[in-house]
Parts: sequence; C-alpha cells; structure tokens
Amino acid sequence: MTGPESTPATAREVATHSLRLRRIGIDTYQEPVIYMRSDCHVCRSEGFEAQARVNVSNDKRTITATLNVITGDLLAPNEAGLSEAAWRLLDAAPGEKVMVSHPAPLESLGHVRAKVYGQRLEEAGMRAIVRDIVAGRYSDVHLASFITACATAPLNHRETIALTRAMIDVGDRLTWGKDVVVDKHCVGGLPGNRTTLLVVPIVAACGLTIPKTSSRSITSPAGTADTMETLAPVELDLQAMRRVVEREGGCIVWGGALGLSPADDILIRVERPLDIDSEGQLIASVLSKKAAAGSTHVLIDVPVGPTAKVRSHEAAHAMSRNLTEVGRAIGLHVEVVLTDGSQPVGRGIGPAMEARDVLAVLQGEPGAPLDLRERALLLASRILEFAGHVPAGQGHAWAQRALDGGQAWDKFQAIAEGQGGLREPTRAPHTHPVMAPRSGRITGIDNRRLARVAKFAGAPLDPAAGVELRAACGDDVDKDQPLFVIHAQSRGELQYALDYVRMQPDILCVQASP
Amino acid sequence: MTGPESTPATAREVATHSLRLRRIGIDTYQEPVIYMRSDCHVCRSEGFEAQARVNVSNDKRTITATLNVITGDLLAPNEAGLSEAAWRLLDAAPGEKVMVSHPAPLESLGHVRAKVYGQRLEEAGMRAIVRDIVAGRYSDVHLASFITACATAPLNHRETIALTRAMIDVGDRLTWGKDVVVDKHCVGGLPGNRTTLLVVPIVAACGLTIPKTSSRSITSPAGTADTMETLAPVELDLQAMRRVVEREGGCIVWGGALGLSPADDILIRVERPLDIDSEGQLIASVLSKKAAAGSTHVLIDVPVGPTAKVRSHEAAHAMSRNLTEVGRAIGLHVEVVLTDGSQPVGRGIGPAMEARDVLAVLQGEPGAPLDLRERALLLASRILEFAGHVPAGQGHAWAQRALDGGQAWDKFQAIAEGQGGLREPTRAPHTHPVMAPRSGRITGIDNRRLARVAKFAGAPLDPAAGVELRAACGDDVDKDQPLFVIHAQSRGELQYALDYVRMQPDILCVQASP
Repeated sequence: MTGPESTPATAREVATHSLRLRRIGIDTYQEPVIYMRSDCHVCRSEGFEAQARVNVSNDKRTITATLNVITGDLLAPNEAGLSEAAWRLLDAAPGEKVMVSHPAPLESLGHVRAKVYGQRLEEAGMRAIVRDIVAGRYSDVHLASFITACATAPLNHRETIALTRAMIDVGDRLTWGKDVVVDKHCVGGLPGNRTTLLVVPIVAACGLTIPKTSSRSITSPAGTADTMETLAPVELDLQAMRRVVEREGGCIVWGGALGLSPADDILIRVERPLDIDSEGQLIASVLSKKAAAGSTHVLIDVPVGPTAKVRSHEAAHAMSRNLTEVGRAIGLHVEVVLTDGSQPVGRGIGPAMEARDVLAVLQGEPGAPLDLRERALLLASRILEFAGHVPAGQGHAWAQRALDGGQAWDKFQAIAEGQGGLREPTRAPHTHPVMAPRSGRITGIDNRRLARVAKFAGAPLDPAAGVELRAACGDDVDKDQPLFVIHAQSRGELQYALDYVRMQPDILCVQASP
Repeated sequence: MTGPESTPATAREVATHSLRLRRIGIDTYQEPVIYMRSDCHVCRSEGFEAQARVNVSNDKRTITATLNVITGDLLAPNEAGLSEAAWRLLDAAPGEKVMVSHPAPLESLGHVRAKVYGQRLEEAGMRAIVRDIVAGRYSDVHLASFITACATAPLNHRETIALTRAMIDVGDRLTWGKDVVVDKHCVGGLPGNRTTLLVVPIVAACGLTIPKTSSRSITSPAGTADTMETLAPVELDLQAMRRVVEREGGCIVWGGALGLSPADDILIRVERPLDIDSEGQLIASVLSKKAAAGSTHVLIDVPVGPTAKVRSHEAAHAMSRNLTEVGRAIGLHVEVVLTDGSQPVGRGIGPAMEARDVLAVLQGEPGAPLDLRERALLLASRILEFAGHVPAGQGHAWAQRALDGGQAWDKFQAIAEGQGGLREPTRAPHTHPVMAPRSGRITGIDNRRLARVAKFAGAPLDPAAGVELRAACGDDVDKDQPLFVIHAQSRGELQYALDYVRMQPDILCVQASP
C-alpha cells in the first residue's frame, strides 16, 4: 500500500496539538472513534494510548471520541481520521484542523459506581450522568454499565422521576398552543402490535391534535417508526413535522431525527445489543419523550401475557401506578390500558409485513386482521373520552365511524403525503415456511422467541424481513401445514433464522389431537 | 488517496464467503474488529451491518469480531482488514483467505439477563457465560453488562464458587510435584503496597516453592507485574517460568502471558475503564489463578482502612470467611491477614517508583521505607509458619535473617536473572511538586484520590509516571512544603494530573496547627 503524501507537521500544529482531518470512511455504527498515528506529535506529547477517551475540537464543536492507534501508514504523521459517526457529530470537513486533548475527568461515573455499590441516585447525580451522556462523554462500555446497574438494582419512584426530569432537561420541548394535545404509547413486547398507525389517523380525523413521535426498534423486530417508514418518510425535522401536524392534526415521525430525546437516542444504541430494558428507564424514556413532544394527555397500552414484556396483572398494575405517578410529578395526565398480550397482533412481524396489515385495516379489506382493528378502535376510543373530546361511552362509535367511513384512511394518506409521500412496502426475495411437526391445536405462542426469529431473519434493519404468521392460538392445524413463513433479504440471514428455529422447536406449541 | 490495486473476487471466493486479509495496522486495544467494505460480496449476501458480531475463520482458528464497515477505498472489494488484536488472536498472515459468517446465537447472554432481572446464577449458567467469554464471543458491551450485574447484585457464596470453578475449568493448571506450594495475594486498594517483590525472595531463600504469577493493574496505578517489569522481564511463557521456579524456588511473572486465567485476562480489559470490581469476582479471580498456578497454601493480605478497597473490619471479616470457604470448596488452604490500610505503603506510587522502594529494602539502605519492610516480614513469616515450614513463632526470625543477611537480595537477583536480566527502573522527565496549603499536621490521606492522581499522570502505562510521597500521616508540615511530587512522561499528562489535584484539594488532609 502506498503511503499518503506526507506534509510535515508545522511548528504551529505541534504547539497547538492540532492535526489535519482525512476522511477514511470507517463506519463504527454510533461510537465516535478518532484514528491517530502512534508516532504523531500529539500522541507522543499527550501520552495517548489505544482506547483512551480524548476530546476532539474543530472551530465549531467539541466531541469525545475513543482513540484507535494507527501503526501502519494509513495516515500521515500530522493527520487524524474519524469514524463516520464522529465525522457527523463534529460536522467535519476534509483537511480542516482539529485539536486533540485529554477530556476532563468523568466525575459522573462516580454516581454510576455508587449505584452499582447499592446507593440510590439523587437528582443531582442523575442530572450529572445524563448531561455527560448527552455530551457524548460516555463510551459504549460506560453506557452498558449504567443501563445494567439501573436494571439490576431497579430504579425506585424517586430515581425514576429524577431520571425522567434529567432526560427532559437536556432536550427541547415543543409547544402547540392548544389546551389538549394527546399521545399514545405501547410498552411493547408484543410482535405486530402496530396500532399507532391506525390510532393516529382515527383520532386526528375526529379533530384532536396528536403529534406522534415514534421510536425505531430497541430490542424488537420492528419499531413503529420502522414500520411507518415502509409507507412514508419518517425522518422529518422539527419544522417539517410542525407543518404536517398544523395541517393534518397528526403525524407519525421518528423521534430520533427531532433531537427531542438526545439521552434516549444514545442509550438505545447500547440497549439494543444488550437486549436489556428496565421499568425505570422505560418509564423515563416514554414520559420524557411525551413531555418533550408537548403532550398533555397520554394513553399507555400495556399488553400483559406470559411471554410479553409485562407478564402478570400484578406487574402491570405496579407499572400503571408508576407511570401515572411519574406522569403527575412532571405534569402529564397519564392513563393506562391493560390489553391482551398472549399472542402477536395481526399477521406480520417485521416492518413491511406489519405495514401491510395496517393498510388492510385502513382500506377495510375483507381479510384484514380483526384483532389489530379491534385494539386500535379500543385505544382510539379511550383517547377520545379521556381527553374530554367526546362524552363518556361514545368514543367507540366515533372511532368506528372514522375508520369505516374512510376518513381515517383519507387522513392517513394526507399525513403520509405531508411527510413526503405514500409508498408501497417492499417484499423480501427469500422466504421459507416452517411446518407443524404434528397435527393438533395451537395452545401457545412464544412471543419472545418468535420475535428473535424475525430479528435473526434481518428485521428491522431489512424492512422486508421477518415472520408472517399463518396460524393463531386455538387454531387446529394438520402436520406439515405452514405455521409461519420466514422472509429474509439474504440467504445467510434466512439460514441464520432457520438454524435458530431448529434449536427452538416449540415456538408455536402444537398439542397433538387426542 | 490512491485505492489499493483491486483484484476482482473469484467465483470460489464469492461461493465460500471468503475475503483476503490486508494488514491495515489499526490498534483497538483488545477488542477484535474486522473491517469490510459495505459493497463486498460477503456483506451483501449475509446482510452484515456495522457493529454486527461476525465469525472470522482462517485455516487454523475461528474468532468472533465486531464489524466496522468501510465506505471508502481503504480496501479492495474482496479484501478484509483486522484490528491488531484480531490479527493476533487469529494468528493471521497477510493475503491469506478468511471466511466470514454469522456466529451462533449467544444463548449465554440469557443467563446474564436472568442475573440482571434478579435470578441467581447456577453452575451451568456460569460455565456457559465463562466459556463464551473465553471463546471471545462477548463484545466489550456484553462484558461491561456482566461485570456490572455481578457487582450490583453481588454474587452469593454459591455463585462465587460457581464462577471460581468455571474460571479454573477454562484454563490450564500447573503441577509442581511438591506437597506444599505457597502463594500470596493482596486484595489491593493500597497504593505502593508492593510486598510481593520482597516476600517471594525471602520465602524462596528459606527453601519454599512460590511460583508467583501477578497481574497488571486493573484499576490501580500499578500492578505487581507492572512494578516487577521495571526490574526484569515478566512476560515469560510457561516453559521459561518453570525453569526459573525449578532453579530458584520462586518467580514473579505476569500471569496474563501464561494463559492460566483466560477468562480473567478478558474481564480485566473492561473492568479497567469501568473502575468497578466486586467481591465475588475478586475472589473468583484470585483463587482461580492460585489454583491454576498449582498452589496448595495461599496467604491473602487484606488492607483495611477508610479509603482502602475494604473499609471496615466487619467487611474484612466477611471477605475473609468468603475467601477461606471458597478456597475450601476448590481444595485450597487459604489464610487471611488483615493489615493497616489507612495510608500508602512506601513512598512511590507507580511502577518505577515502587520498584525503587523495593530495592532500597532489599539492599538494606538506611533510608529504606520501614513500613514496607515490616509488612513484608510479617507476611513472609505467616507463610513460613502456615505452610508448616518452620515451627510456630519462629517465622519472623527466619524471614528477618533472610532479608538482613542478604540472602533475599541474592535470591531476587537470581530470579531477575532467570527471568531475563535485572534492570534499572526509569525516571520520568516531567515532575511537579504539590505543596501544603497551610502549616499543620497530616491527619489523613485519601488513597483513592491519590491513586487517581498517579493514574492521570500516566501510571501504569508509563512505568516512570506516578506520585512520590514526601509526607505521611502524623507528620507536621510547613506551608508550601512539598506533600508529594507528580512524575509524568509527557507535559499533557502532568497537566491533567495537576488539574485533577486542583479540583481535589484535600488529598492529604493538613489540619492547621492551633
């Protein structure tokens, strides 16, 4: 490999610890990394070693990055490279000068350690942690430790309120000039539960304001934003989102693009590979986002079932109380609905297939999944009543009229147009059915394992990947009749998902007929 | 930048998902990383994205690595690069072919999650976790989560035994053909407590076998191996270590180079940036290493003090019981000595300065630190008696004779020669004194903060960096008299340590004279 042309470092560069940026095009996902030669003047004089955390500044910004040391000739001695994530965060330009220095000691890690060693986090400690996270001072290893500590020694009520407030404080907060702004959220754990894409158009068609920001998947095969994205653009900025909501009364956009929950956006990148989320963080994440979006009334759907995220009514009631009380502490009206979490909703699991279920309900197709339709009507009716928009007892009739009369579908199309244009969900090139091992009745579905199949198949990164259910609880099936079909974008991923299914034979439990 | 010459991928390379290795020289510390082009045939057909964990195999080995995706022309389409750590683990050669595939799902993470959610880890779960860690299947984020969970929900007695056994099972175990093989360990937390370098030559000079494997620093400014390395090579392989012990009766080598504790060697890389260690992991780490080294009798030094690792006698007694009982469960005689942990031992903090304290004691210099000498004699005498080598009550006289008669210094020199040759510890080019803010008496020393000063100054990576104490508890000092001197290899680090001292003014507490 020919070395890059080498311009010697100037005296000024040496004196100011500056290096010239070269774009080397390495994608480390979201972790900011700086690449510096082991023999560059900055490494030598500052004593930097690989994996050190360093501050990198250009004229505009300062970020903290992890150092990877270049021992070959990828860079000239007075050059530095950045991972694509660091390049974006710094808003860097090729050839511009950056200064590299030791970051201030990360004192807030002392609060994380105190939590690990059994102490409770106070407001000041929580604020210090969240501020450092948002400033990008935590490496992925630090983030993993904070997330794990808060799940292992679960946050109590005070800690949850402290975390929620800290997360609100580090972001912007929208205002809509209305007395009532509604929102909904599902705590997840139920594959295919894509009611948001129905509730928003129904409620907006009835005249309420519902500026819905959704997340991408954290640990599931699809987040609402992933599903909506197969139908319309979701990465709107604040101004574009405001235009859609002011014209249509609602939107379904990705919250991450708005920067309303900067702490959450960072925590998610580590929650995903760990597959851990805790109630305290979940509540802080949800309610801080709702507060930031300017909502006044929030309905929360908590599916309860043996393999859902919340497994017992006792746990669900505890979570309800916690949600309602933390909501009150930060000035939000929160109402919780417990729903059936025993099996997936609709037929598709994975962004594009879930989107097709939604379209079938909106368009009133005869074969549209009834369970998805009924859940959406229930949630919409509760929002209409809880926000005082229609008299008690009349919510369901209003919601059903909007759906069956076509106003909800019109509203959905208008919202999709406002967000950049309605589009058709894609289909995956590789599919493979998984057959019933025997004749009998389906007595249970393991939501968690089914979700893992969809993830191994490539969802949500490949929007067309996932699982298409062909049978539900209570159905009678014949031996070798398809139970579900795996969809994948590549043969490798299809095989990966099939390997997992082979190791986990009873994802759909078929009890032999007597 | 000119692109590397591009040879198109052959049909066979495409069919077998193989890529040719190019050495690109990126040091990511210990995390194995593979660099692949986003448009290479393997990424495309397997659906790999940045941060994915992938299996990489050559003819000899298979490792798991984190994927960084190259979007520029650093690599040709049929090439892959490796971080230096991955290159070493795979024993790779430039131009050789590697196959890249999806790793098997990491089922043992389910046990980590169960621990996070409040369950106890059983032997089988612990073994599965440790096996996957040693196989390199855990990313740094997974390791951080496991370590944090075990510190936040402390391991109980059964879990500690399970972890200790699992850690022994994944490594080799030495045998020495002797009935009694002794060892010592200090649980740390006390800067400068470098008694091992004295105890080993004293005990070996008295005729016992003490094959001492030491660790490098985890969270402290110097580990015993770091200090010994400033005096002699410590990275010996098993055969070389055996030669030294068989000839001299003892050695002081770095355990990491022997591969006796492969799990521990990996956990350490994440414990260091987190600055977390828990009692269960500490006990498993210590005792699994002693068992692997073939010891029968182990003396453990537990310093107790308000800012030491163990802060109360109650906690020390609990740890003693735990150490003794876990030792019994795995067939080791363990004895614990509680020692004074109220202030640093000797004068130096940092590898080279601690080594000079040791030399002063061995050579009987008049100004040698008395506290270090007395602790070493105490520990050596307890080992001599506890192993049944000398009658009860005579240990101290034996140890003192060996030290004052010069046999211990002769033995140390012989061991150092056997390990590759005695050498002189280096000195740092930059020093700066920190003065007493007022006249008065030193009433306390914050060991933890003092250790952090030494770390900010560059210890242990720069062996000559650290802190040289000029005053001890109980001393009377005048205003502007030096309390300690910071030593650093670079101006940047010196400044970093001074900035920290400025924010933490009372590391040595000087109470004004009345």
